[in-house]
Amino acid sequence: MAKTRRTDAPITVDGRARAVIENVRPEVDNGRYPIKRTVGEAVTVEADVFVDGHDKLASLLLYRRDDEREWAEVPMAPLGNDRWSASFRVTEAGRYRYTVIAWVDHFQSWRHELTRRPDTDPDLKMVFLTGAELVTRAAANITGRDAERLGAIARTLSGSATVVEKRRVALSEEIAELMNRHAERRFVTRYEKEWMIEVDRERARFSSWYEFFPRSCDSDKHGSFRDCEARLRYVASMGFDVVYLPPVHPIGRSFRKGPNNTLTAKPDDVGSPWAIGAKDGGHKSVHPELGTLEDFRWFVATAGELDLEVALDIAYQCSPDHPYVKQHPEWFRRRSDGSVQYAENPPKKYQDIYPFDFECESWQELWRELKSVMEFWIGEGVRIFRVDNPHTKPFLFWEWVIGEIKRTHPDVLFLSEAFTRPKVMHRLSKLGFTCSYTYFTWRNTKRELTDYFTELTRAEGREYFRSHVWPNTPDILNEYLQFGGRPAFMVRLVLAATLAASYGIYGPAFELAETQAREPGSEEYLDSEKYQLRRWDLDRPDSLRDFIARVNRIRRDNPALQGDRDLRFHAVDNDKLICYSKTAEDLSDIVLVVVNLDPHHRQSGWVELPLDMLGVKDEQPYQMHDLLTGSRFIWNGTRNYVELDPQTSPAHIFRLRRRVRTEHDFDYYM
Amino acid sequence: MAKTRRTDAPITVDGRARAVIENVRPEVDNGRYPIKRTVGEAVTVEADVFVDGHDKLASLLLYRRDDEREWAEVPMAPLGNDRWSASFRVTEAGRYRYTVIAWVDHFQSWRHELTRRPDTDPDLKMVFLTGAELVTRAAANITGRDAERLGAIARTLSGSATVVEKRRVALSEEIAELMNRHAERRFVTRYEKEWMIEVDRERARFSSWYEFFPRSCDSDKHGSFRDCEARLRYVASMGFDVVYLPPVHPIGRSFRKGPNNTLTAKPDDVGSPWAIGAKDGGHKSVHPELGTLEDFRWFVATAGELDLEVALDIAYQCSPDHPYVKQHPEWFRRRSDGSVQYAENPPKKYQDIYPFDFECESWQELWRELKSVMEFWIGEGVRIFRVDNPHTKPFLFWEWVIGEIKRTHPDVLFLSEAFTRPKVMHRLSKLGFTCSYTYFTWRNTKRELTDYFTELTRAEGREYFRSHVWPNTPDILNEYLQFGGRPAFMVRLVLAATLAASYGIYGPAFELAETQAREPGSEEYLDSEKYQLRRWDLDRPDSLRDFIARVNRIRRDNPALQGDRDLRFHAVDNDKLICYSKTAEDLSDIVLVVVNLDPHHRQSGWVELPLDMLGVKDEQPYQMHDLLTGSRFIWNGTRNYVELDPQTSPAHIFRLRRRVRTEHDFDYYM
Repeated sequence: MAKTRRTDAPITVDGRARAVIENVRPEVDNGRYPIKRTVGEAVTVEADVFVDGHDKLASLLLYRRDDEREWAEVPMAPLGNDRWSASFRVTEAGRYRYTVIAWVDHFQSWRHELTRRPDTDPDLKMVFLTGAELVTRAAANITGRDAERLGAIARTLSGSATVVEKRRVALSEEIAELMNRHAERRFVTRYEKEWMIEVDRERARFSSWYEFFPRSCDSDKHGSFRDCEARLRYVASMGFDVVYLPPVHPIGRSFRKGPNNTLTAKPDDVGSPWAIGAKDGGHKSVHPELGTLEDFRWFVATAGELDLEVALDIAYQCSPDHPYVKQHPEWFRRRSDGSVQYAENPPKKYQDIYPFDFECESWQELWRELKSVMEFWIGEGVRIFRVDNPHTKPFLFWEWVIGEIKRTHPDVLFLSEAFTRPKVMHRLSKLGFTCSYTYFTWRNTKRELTDYFTELTRAEGREYFRSHVWPNTPDILNEYLQFGGRPAFMVRLVLAATLAASYGIYGPAFELAETQAREPGSEEYLDSEKYQLRRWDLDRPDSLRDFIARVNRIRRDNPALQGDRDLRFHAVDNDKLICYSKTAEDLSDIVLVVVNLDPHHRQSGWVELPLDMLGVKDEQPYQMHDLLTGSRFIWNGTRNYVELDPQTSPAHIFRLRRRVRTEHDFDYYM
Repeated sequence: MAKTRRTDAPITVDGRARAVIENVRPEVDNGRYPIKRTVGEAVTVEADVFVDGHDKLASLLLYRRDDEREWAEVPMAPLGNDRWSASFRVTEAGRYRYTVIAWVDHFQSWRHELTRRPDTDPDLKMVFLTGAELVTRAAANITGRDAERLGAIARTLSGSATVVEKRRVALSEEIAELMNRHAERRFVTRYEKEWMIEVDRERARFSSWYEFFPRSCDSDKHGSFRDCEARLRYVASMGFDVVYLPPVHPIGRSFRKGPNNTLTAKPDDVGSPWAIGAKDGGHKSVHPELGTLEDFRWFVATAGELDLEVALDIAYQCSPDHPYVKQHPEWFRRRSDGSVQYAENPPKKYQDIYPFDFECESWQELWRELKSVMEFWIGEGVRIFRVDNPHTKPFLFWEWVIGEIKRTHPDVLFLSEAFTRPKVMHRLSKLGFTCSYTYFTWRNTKRELTDYFTELTRAEGREYFRSHVWPNTPDILNEYLQFGGRPAFMVRLVLAATLAASYGIYGPAFELAETQAREPGSEEYLDSEKYQLRRWDLDRPDSLRDFIARVNRIRRDNPALQGDRDLRFHAVDNDKLICYSKTAEDLSDIVLVVVNLDPHHRQSGWVELPLDMLGVKDEQPYQMHDLLTGSRFIWNGTRNYVELDPQTSPAHIFRLRRRVRTEHDFDYYM
């Protein structure tokens, strides 16, 4: 043999850690961002785990809260094709991390080989001795009952017992359990990464929002917080849990917009709440006509008594009258003539709005000030922010400010109002926004809804992008609502409230089915509340108030509707009818929704269901209980008939009741 | 305004770098492994690049050799939906790295806004001043002609020229180019990762292998290297470029296997070359009956003169007679009775093979010794290793040893002989193997071939898993070959040689269409050369030698067949006919293959082609030149008829010649 050449290159790995761990999922962007869950939800982790040769592996999922040191362990189980899986539940808001370890389990390998050795194998005696050695080594590390049991097993394997007896002991459940607990973990491979989880309180996943303008809550004059008590009761009676207010700060005078966004406001025009800042103060002040800071506190407390949480609008922009403009001129961009650069999207000019210049020299001071705005309102009891146009401020700012806030207040939630390009919306969700507005507002056909919600609930984004869906907003009155009449509002309400666990409406325009756009082709409301006070007749007999209350009640009663991960669409042989189901994790609650998307005509068709997925046996009839109307239908098999008249009820929200009673259920049968 | 609360948490990011870069592709396992290319190939990189708001971006792809310091820059171009792309070519073997940078391009943003401003915009004068400032700032950093030009432009923009003139200058190509070159790069975002490329010489991508047993190259006795000259000429005449030899080392005596893998060998039985090691030496020695090390050198040199490269088998295992067993008993596992543990897969026992114990105490010494085996043969002129069963040795060992070898010898190639589970095969390719055996050997139907090669060329693995396909090996005589006769061998040869840029056959069993399996249901050859000498009549008139030579010639002449990235399958309305195309990057070479998979019957059908993808205009006839037979067919439109009789030629290998001459091509037309 030729003389071995030696090199001095040091070997830097632990070469005996033979197990390989790859492709640990879920994760977001190589771990750059955490996946998201809410308190109580399961995290199911999968990984490719394998080893060279034929040895058997043991693998554990490790997880812990970010601020704890001890890892909890869950055994991974093989799914086939070298894919393994395990689950755990997150129990507190905040950050968690997880990773996977694996090692060659020589005892399992030995046991597996033993099952394949015939009794005639001449080496069998030696094989049992090898087993005894493995058991003895495991026993060496412990004391007590388990050590005794392992000792006894080792003696049997190495002693004079029959092959049959040794085989019985070697393959027993007891030895498997004991060795699982105590066998040496040698040469452990650890996945190179730890992935993160951002855990929020439950409302991040399941919430029903109602947006309204407090200034329009009084029928005679500019409403104030104190005037809103009846309105809050009204909102609570419909089963909402979040009231979201447009900005509550002093409104600028310079370039104030008049009704219908006209350029010249009259002195008594109220202006847009998004033109923030006046001599009375800026982002940390309350508009005098709404009341005082104390009135705001009263409003938050009153809402709280009705189980309503207040969400505040955060719009980081200034009217020319904002105190910042004088106190911090360095935070704004200058034009060549020295004047402050207003917002512009040529040829449009927005002279009533000064954007911050995030590229200014004192950007760090600006960031800290903007953060202090949120901290101020957190101090006033607010825990939800609806952030206006986050896609026009730097991503790094949001990542920093949300991270800082959540570090001390993990219960604060952020809704991103970014109606923009998909990758921008996704980035905002990745970097920290709890949930995001969606394109739902413009998805009306069966194809559009199916494609979009399949993407939202099945594509990669499901790990970090939580949808918040709105049939209308003060900015958007979609043509489907403009032309579909009252049934269209019912359709869109049911879709929003059952396709997504989090949804909201802008009222009372919604429940009163306001359909007037400013002009043909526009999605702006005529006489929009953004620029003027509006009077609403909440008691109109055609109000959808009761219908909305029923839908929200159904949402509260059915866990299936409180999450989005298990949404599935089902075939109907009529393109005007859409059908989908949502299920609770354990199939204890199954909700099937059928909606007639045609607000004008009665539609009928045959629904096709994957019964096995819903836990129904093929030959067994099952009851469909329509929670909207109370009607019950007996269905059987995979194909069943539905018919929906928009003038009566444009939708079924069925709860599937799996068993239909038969003669066996009655006493007199026996 | 409430007093601003200040916190002391430092801001650790450069908050003004507003551009975002995400999802830079290709990459493998979060960058844990490099993508692979060969010298001269293009690397096309894509990334999501975007920014808050409406500003325009500039983005560059950066790349460099790992051992250089300077980055080369390629401008990224937008593809739509915030996806950007750029390409470069790798020119040398070794490691490269690449990443992406981006920044807000204020000049581009300004120019874009200018196009949307009407001449009536009252701010236009100020807008041109802003442009002049940007241009002046760019000029400040440079001298020479460009500085002068920028200065002149700035003067025009800030001077008294007409709006029309200023607009013309501002939107000119010249200013765009100058500003692209010189505009300040402020607040640059750099992608957080650098991804790697492993660049190999061309043979890693395109090679034609021929495996044979040198000991069977003499018709009367045990052949030696020196007896192989005629055989090498014969192999070269068929157009192969790699000859691969089974292990050439001394063969063990203990438990030597007899013909057809019988347990009891007679004294003159030659044994399996994979039972490595005897008193004459181990992995760094040559089997005495094949000759001396000098004879091996002669063999390598003689092959080289014929443009044949020698690939050596690396099988890290020992016969009981291997010198290692006595010299390094610590490298082997012991049984309870102290004897060495032979290879076992219960109930099968392989007493002639001792595997190394990679979990032994002296594993580092073992690793270094195994590396020295490769270094020894590299010293003897070998640059290709075909590695036997790498999946039964630790992954970390391969990653280390291949990394170490390639660090000093980037021209060495490694073929992984791992016929095992997909994730194991992929891991071996990721960690460094140049190419890998595939499941091709067992993929015979149209559906199987289409699915498998679509996966190989379109799924993620395409970035690191290079296929090497073999219709047969000394271990595998697939049933398709056993029962399909000579046409089956032609079919499989054409498929292997045109579906994959790298393929190999085990001969002369292949070209002589050896069909006898050891027993029904077995894929082992009867009287396999693994255990005995064989005599081959290379001059048999039915030999496929000429057919193979023609196919290899077609491969050499057509760049389209020298890569796998552009394989595409096309519809044929007959499941026995498979059709696919391969194209050179620039469409300068388009090869279309149609194979009759039925070795027994004539089959016909209509082929359907995506003409636009092949650069053919719909109404234009085109010529299909069958490179196998020399026949030419005029086709037109998307559907054309093919008919293949396995008894004459079971395949077309068409070169698509785009133009068919018309009257316009002849002098007398005018």
